[in-house]
Amino acid sequence: MLINCVAYENGSRLADLSVEEISDYLAKPDCFVWVALRDATPQELDQMKEEFALHDLAVEDARHGHQRPKIEEYGDSVFAVMHLLEQDKGEFNVGEVNVFVGRNYILSVRNRSQQHFLGVRERCEREPHLLRQGAGFVLYALMDAVVDRYFPIMDRLESELEKIEEQIFAKGAARSNIERLYDLKSKITFLKHAVAPMMEATGKLSGGRGPAVCANSRDYFRDVYDHLARINASLDTIRDTIGTAIQVNLSMVTIEESEVNKKLAAWAGIFAVATAFAGIWGMNFKAMPELQWEYGYPMALLAIGTACVALYVHFRRVGWL
Amino acid sequence: MLINCVAYENGSRLADLSVEEISDYLAKPDCFVWVALRDATPQELDQMKEEFALHDLAVEDARHGHQRPKIEEYGDSVFAVMHLLEQDKGEFNVGEVNVFVGRNYILSVRNRSQQHFLGVRERCEREPHLLRQGAGFVLYALMDAVVDRYFPIMDRLESELEKIEEQIFAKGAARSNIERLYDLKSKITFLKHAVAPMMEATGKLSGGRGPAVCANSRDYFRDVYDHLARINASLDTIRDTIGTAIQVNLSMVTIEESEVNKKLAAWAGIFAVATAFAGIWGMNFKAMPELQWEYGYPMALLAIGTACVALYVHFRRVGWL
Amino acid sequence: MLINCVAYENGSRLADLSVEEISDYLAKPDCFVWVALRDATPQELDQMKEEFALHDLAVEDARHGHQRPKIEEYGDSVFAVMHLLEQDKGEFNVGEVNVFVGRNYILSVRNRSQQHFLGVRERCEREPHLLRQGAGFVLYALMDAVVDRYFPIMDRLESELEKIEEQIFAKGAARSNIERLYDLKSKITFLKHAVAPMMEATGKLSGGRGPAVCANSRDYFRDVYDHLARINASLDTIRDTIGTAIQVNLSMVTIEESEVNKKLAAWAGIFAVATAFAGIWGMNFKAMPELQWEYGYPMALLAIGTACVALYVHFRRVGWL
Amino acid sequence: MLINCVAYENGSRLADLSVEEISDYLAKPDCFVWVALRDATPQELDQMKEEFALHDLAVEDARHGHQRPKIEEYGDSVFAVMHLLEQDKGEFNVGEVNVFVGRNYILSVRNRSQQHFLGVRERCEREPHLLRQGAGFVLYALMDAVVDRYFPIMDRLESELEKIEEQIFAKGAARSNIERLYDLKSKITFLKHAVAPMMEATGKLSGGRGPAVCANSRDYFRDVYDHLARINASLDTIRDTIGTAIQVNLSMVTIEESEVNKKLAAWAGIFAVATAFAGIWGMNFKAMPELQWEYGYPMALLAIGTACVALYVHFRRVGWL
Amino acid sequence: MLINCVAYENGSRLADLSVEEISDYLAKPDCFVWVALRDATPQELDQMKEEFALHDLAVEDARHGHQRPKIEEYGDSVFAVMHLLEQDKGEFNVGEVNVFVGRNYILSVRNRSQQHFLGVRERCEREPHLLRQGAGFVLYALMDAVVDRYFPIMDRLESELEKIEEQIFAKGAARSNIERLYDLKSKITFLKHAVAPMMEATGKLSGGRGPAVCANSRDYFRDVYDHLARINASLDTIRDTIGTAIQVNLSMVTIEESEVNKKLAAWAGIFAVATAFAGIWGMNFKAMPELQWEYGYPMALLAIGTACVALYVHFRRVGWL
Repeated sequence: MLINCVAYENGSRLADLSVEEISDYLAKPDCFVWVALRDATPQELDQMKEEFALHDLAVEDARHGHQRPKIEEYGDSVFAVMHLLEQDKGEFNVGEVNVFVGRNYILSVRNRSQQHFLGVRERCEREPHLLRQGAGFVLYALMDAVVDRYFPIMDRLESELEKIEEQIFAKGAARSNIERLYDLKSKITFLKHAVAPMMEATGKLSGGRGPAVCANSRDYFRDVYDHLARINASLDTIRDTIGTAIQVNLSMVTIEESEVNKKLAAWAGIFAVATAFAGIWGMNFKAMPELQWEYGYPMALLAIGTACVALYVHFRRVGWL
Repeated sequence: MLINCVAYENGSRLADLSVEEISDYLAKPDCFVWVALRDATPQELDQMKEEFALHDLAVEDARHGHQRPKIEEYGDSVFAVMHLLEQDKGEFNVGEVNVFVGRNYILSVRNRSQQHFLGVRERCEREPHLLRQGAGFVLYALMDAVVDRYFPIMDRLESELEKIEEQIFAKGAARSNIERLYDLKSKITFLKHAVAPMMEATGKLSGGRGPAVCANSRDYFRDVYDHLARINASLDTIRDTIGTAIQVNLSMVTIEESEVNKKLAAWAGIFAVATAFAGIWGMNFKAMPELQWEYGYPMALLAIGTACVALYVHFRRVGWL
Repeated sequence: MLINCVAYENGSRLADLSVEEISDYLAKPDCFVWVALRDATPQELDQMKEEFALHDLAVEDARHGHQRPKIEEYGDSVFAVMHLLEQDKGEFNVGEVNVFVGRNYILSVRNRSQQHFLGVRERCEREPHLLRQGAGFVLYALMDAVVDRYFPIMDRLESELEKIEEQIFAKGAARSNIERLYDLKSKITFLKHAVAPMMEATGKLSGGRGPAVCANSRDYFRDVYDHLARINASLDTIRDTIGTAIQVNLSMVTIEESEVNKKLAAWAGIFAVATAFAGIWGMNFKAMPELQWEYGYPMALLAIGTACVALYVHFRRVGWL
Repeated sequence: MLINCVAYENGSRLADLSVEEISDYLAKPDCFVWVALRDATPQELDQMKEEFALHDLAVEDARHGHQRPKIEEYGDSVFAVMHLLEQDKGEFNVGEVNVFVGRNYILSVRNRSQQHFLGVRERCEREPHLLRQGAGFVLYALMDAVVDRYFPIMDRLESELEKIEEQIFAKGAARSNIERLYDLKSKITFLKHAVAPMMEATGKLSGGRGPAVCANSRDYFRDVYDHLARINASLDTIRDTIGTAIQVNLSMVTIEESEVNKKLAAWAGIFAVATAFAGIWGMNFKAMPELQWEYGYPMALLAIGTACVALYVHFRRVGWL
Repeated sequence: MLINCVAYENGSRLADLSVEEISDYLAKPDCFVWVALRDATPQELDQMKEEFALHDLAVEDARHGHQRPKIEEYGDSVFAVMHLLEQDKGEFNVGEVNVFVGRNYILSVRNRSQQHFLGVRERCEREPHLLRQGAGFVLYALMDAVVDRYFPIMDRLESELEKIEEQIFAKGAARSNIERLYDLKSKITFLKHAVAPMMEATGKLSGGRGPAVCANSRDYFRDVYDHLARINASLDTIRDTIGTAIQVNLSMVTIEESEVNKKLAAWAGIFAVATAFAGIWGMNFKAMPELQWEYGYPMALLAIGTACVALYVHFRRVGWL
């Protein structure tokens, strides 16, 4: 579905175009066309392919979708794929935006995502001195918008980790901690898959040997790279922390088990002593003088009680109880 | 066994050749010969070696088989080895396709595999404007076909992992989870061995300093590289997830054990109390007044029952039962 | 808030300036201006941006803060971000210093931190032969000061690790060890995030292709790099040691548990023997001759005692008790 | 000990030489001398050093032995060290072969190993068209022979791993599995130490900037590199698998322990119930009506038996027994 | 403290100098001065700084000490820092040697270490044809001496590991194994910190773009590099093995615990059976015919004994006892 199709000259909006007019404006110098599609049909893609002379393989990638993020040069033009992440009740939905950039055009195709880029166009039009850098700057503006939307996701993942960390040494929380850590780790993967290849690709745009169409905006791409590097470093830290947390959690379970074991041992010991004593005085030997004593029974109870209390005190002291 | 031997001119099929005619067509300009062998005998290889002046070492590799995937330049010609994976009742069968590419010929030798490449030839012949790029494009088409067949394998491995993940926090599933994770990991290795070295090699074909015969199709090889990179990234994620899952599984086992231990401790405690009480009233002291009471016995049963119930309630409350 | 604004000529203090005078001095040859701001307001930043013709993106970064440490070139000028770490009751506070360096100016903006750099200015003014190297040397002096403040933090983390290590094989210290190791690991992360990207960036300043403004002070930046490399290597060692320590701790818990288990087994065995013997002589068979013996009871006690002692000695010998 | 000393011209055997004649043949063009020593004495090495003008450090390395595999250039000449592995009753014996290669000579010195290279010489002499490539080709032939002997070792290690894997989920095999895995890992290390540095060094020989003496045989060295890369990849896989297997094994032990624990808990519970019941009817209260019943005893036995069976059935159902 | 100060010409000792004479000899062509200091005072360092025009930062580093090993170029001169390790009752003492090398001088400053380098000077003087290479060769000779002293330390660490490995599967050795492995790992760190950065730095000296003063001795520096690489590889292997050993040890503890558990379960079962039987015949039912039988008691004992023996045999068979 066509969202927008506008021609710009020297950074200012020139005219809203119909698709058929595109080729007229492409011929003008100092002018570029910015087209935005959404969930493009094969027909629309074919039309655009013809208008802008897009490369077969790039259009193929846009059609099939499910690419990893990348930025590729096809001759003078650039083809970029970025992931759009949406969190829907904890589940991630991975959309995609494909951007085709040439000397005098930029075409963005957004697929399977609710996130629109109208704000990007508005901001660009408010700053004609920057938009004058050309189609490369629009690519930057789109990338910047995409990356800006990764930050709140990362923040949410970080605060989720913090919540788990508050519970990590709590007794009895082991099972739920493990489940949440495992879940968090798989969420991290979505963001990581969006960020890491894009960071690598952006690094090339900002370097000295990037494509000509992006040369004017090199400092800006470095800025995007920097944001991606920050997210990436945070993701690596979260992943590393999750690994440690799982390990620590296992230790905590073992420690708790060990404490239960000690308690078990202690109480079992106390009752075993009582039972053994009682068993002995329950034997049927004829000649057991203490059984005949008048205060034999209370004394026996006292003996048993004393032994149990002594054990109890001992176990308390060594920390088993 | 010779499957096919065809000459092409400007991207169009010229003629089906007998092996003896090959040299005639190699002499023509703008013409290349595409030969497909299957489970080639040493004699066939020697014949081809002579026809195309193949390098000793490359032919040797094709004869011996069991190479790792690679793409090597011998002077102007290129020798590529790729793995063909077939899953037969869970077991992987690793076949091989060896491709020799020169300026005006391409020879593919498929060994120990049921996967044929007839479709590749048909598709190439349907797109003469692409086939005109020469033997390098055919190499691309073959690689693309091989890599396309890796995707369903990877999907199957991914869905296998997902099935295990559904069970990972289930009680009593630990042993089978571990076995399936271990099994999955060894399957991953097959695909990894096919993909990782091939990705590395393809990266060189798509770079600026690749062999001349592939120069026309550089963008296409980058596409293959990209697919391989995607599979490779997914494989790394699966491996990483398997590692975490094994760790998590160990935690779950320990947690379950700890719960069993608590139950054991609780019930052992309850019965130990009953036994200890009974033991005490089973002692043979003469002067045990309560034994003479009319309601001594029911009171004793009540005392024992109360103690047991109290313990039971306590254990319930602390979550041991 | 403006802290300081001074012009230097040939390494010597020339004059204290008001902000308005800056542009006069920037015009003079062999002269540079050194401005220090603290928690700069957007207005102050805008003013500075105009005076020094700073790049949009750099000013933006300084305004937003929370950047990762970096050193970026914008044309002839350099923009550096460094982290200032303060430990407040164990919690880390991460402040930032942003430095803009050009051929004839240096501007430092310190945010969210109590650490001032007055000492740096004094030391620079005491060594005019070094300050003569220009604004690049001031950047070095600031970086050196920042890095010097990392050392005591690292020392404290190292001695914390040592204290934990003293306890690592102590009985019953497992839980607190784990908690302290986990806490230490997250502290390490703060320092790591400050040091690692800065080390990488500084490496470029000291290399042959660094920015022109830093070229005179290349050896000095290498010195800073070296300090950062030392801290970084120590941090990696601490992290690695923490990992091993957590693993070792888990082993110690399991070993202790195993020892408790053995003790439990041993005592349970001893009392079980006593109880079984007593149980047997507590049976009500009519014809149990030993029950009638005069010394049956003491002999029974002796038998039980002997069995228990024998078991005790045995368990001692095998190390279970 | 001198094994062989032969001069070659244009790839064909010219003459067997005494050591004294070597220098005569070195002077001839298109001619090279191939000397093989075994467990060379310092005197022999000194003699060779003089004949071929070998470099001090290379000779020193050959004298001392116990080098890591490497390939070094000394001016125009090349010095290579390779490991020869022999498995003697499971123990590895690490021998060494040192090869000195110059424009017109090749000297191999084999130390502490039974593996001879007579076959290499024979094969070379059978293929004069290859041997014509000069001393560099002989170096290739020796390296190829050494590497070919690594394959059966690797195969043996792989099949050892497979045998362990068959046992990995077997009950009660944990201890022996762990011991065998640990042992296998240390064996892997021997092969890894032989292969990894040699692979790295060979990579340089096959690259564009390798030594002149090896330039003719570049494709051949790449072949050796490829074999080494294959072994190396397999070794990495084995190591990785060993790591996972040890982890899995630990899980299996914990699972088995957990199962034993459950059984213990179940049986202890069953008998505790029986004992508690018996204890209660063993109390000496006067007024226990059921004791007087005619069928009290069988009913008691029945009650106890029923309770035990009920428990048994319950435990069976929950999978503890 | 000045140890030695000698001038050399064409590789031969020319004269012992006082510090004041140094500058005279520095002026002579083909002549270099070799000075050795020990625990130099700031005054001595300042004097040397003046004589040889050393760089501020290098002298600063030498004064402060506690640097990581490194080799830095300051213009035409080279500054090297190496660690001297001494093992004093198991504890490592880390000394340092700082070497300043210029075209015509070499100054070594040894700090906090008992290891002297007199032997290096003697050996150098015995080989004037090598010493003629100049100050760079002396640097090599010093580095070689330092590295040679790392080998026995590494050997001791390796044999320590071997001793632990002999115990690793021994029963009851887990705690001491863990402690020794942890201790060994921290020792490894000392050597690693000395070797790894030095290896990296030496790699640059032996490469094509090293400093001019070392150019004559490039092959020799490569030799040092090689030794360091060997130590480094061994250290990595030891570290890896320690990691595996700790993991294996944890498995062994768990296995032992599991065996103890089985034994406990078995014996507890046996005695529980005896106690249950005895308890039943200890019940006070009136009508228990077997109690009246003449051989009731021995038959009961037989029954109990048989049950216990049967259980014992069963447990033996399943390997629990």
